[in-house]
Amino acid sequence: MVIDFLAKYIGYFAAFCTTVAFFPQALKVWRTKSTKDISLNMFIIFTLGVFSWLIYGILIKDFPLIFANALTLFLSLFILIYKIKFK
Amino acid sequence: MVIDFLAKYIGYFAAFCTTVAFFPQALKVWRTKSTKDISLNMFIIFTLGVFSWLIYGILIKDFPLIFANALTLFLSLFILIYKIKFK
Repeated sequence: MVIDFLAKYIGYFAAFCTTVAFFPQALKVWRTKSTKDISLNMFIIFTLGVFSWLIYGILIKDFPLIFANALTLFLSLFILIYKIKFK
Repeated sequence: MVIDFLAKYIGYFAAFCTTVAFFPQALKVWRTKSTKDISLNMFIIFTLGVFSWLIYGILIKDFPLIFANALTLFLSLFILIYKIKFK
């Protein structure tokens, strides 16, 4: 019971962190227009993965999964586009 | 039924992508020792998030969650250490 309660909040905290983490990176590439050290392959694979998580969330009708991944997809795509534009 | 089957495999594919995506980035920082364009805040928040996902996976006893996040935690920590070491 206590474990379930704790797990739920740790899960929310985890989802919050792995989503908002991409904000400072998006902000950094937007400000500096410099992406030399960022891996293109990382952001291609990651964006594809987050897109798949979003589809998965829609298929199993899980709102938190849809919401978190829609936001992460936007940020990840933003970084990917900057990486392609400013090599 | 078909949707459940499809969802499961899309979920696995998503987990696979968002985990292995960090390999090319880890490889890149290891090879170049250059991390100027990588956001320190991103990797602090992301590593904390993945650590929380791992704890969540342990609490709800979900093996795929534990396995994927243990691997991502290793890669994320590796990149974070390089970011701190080679500013």
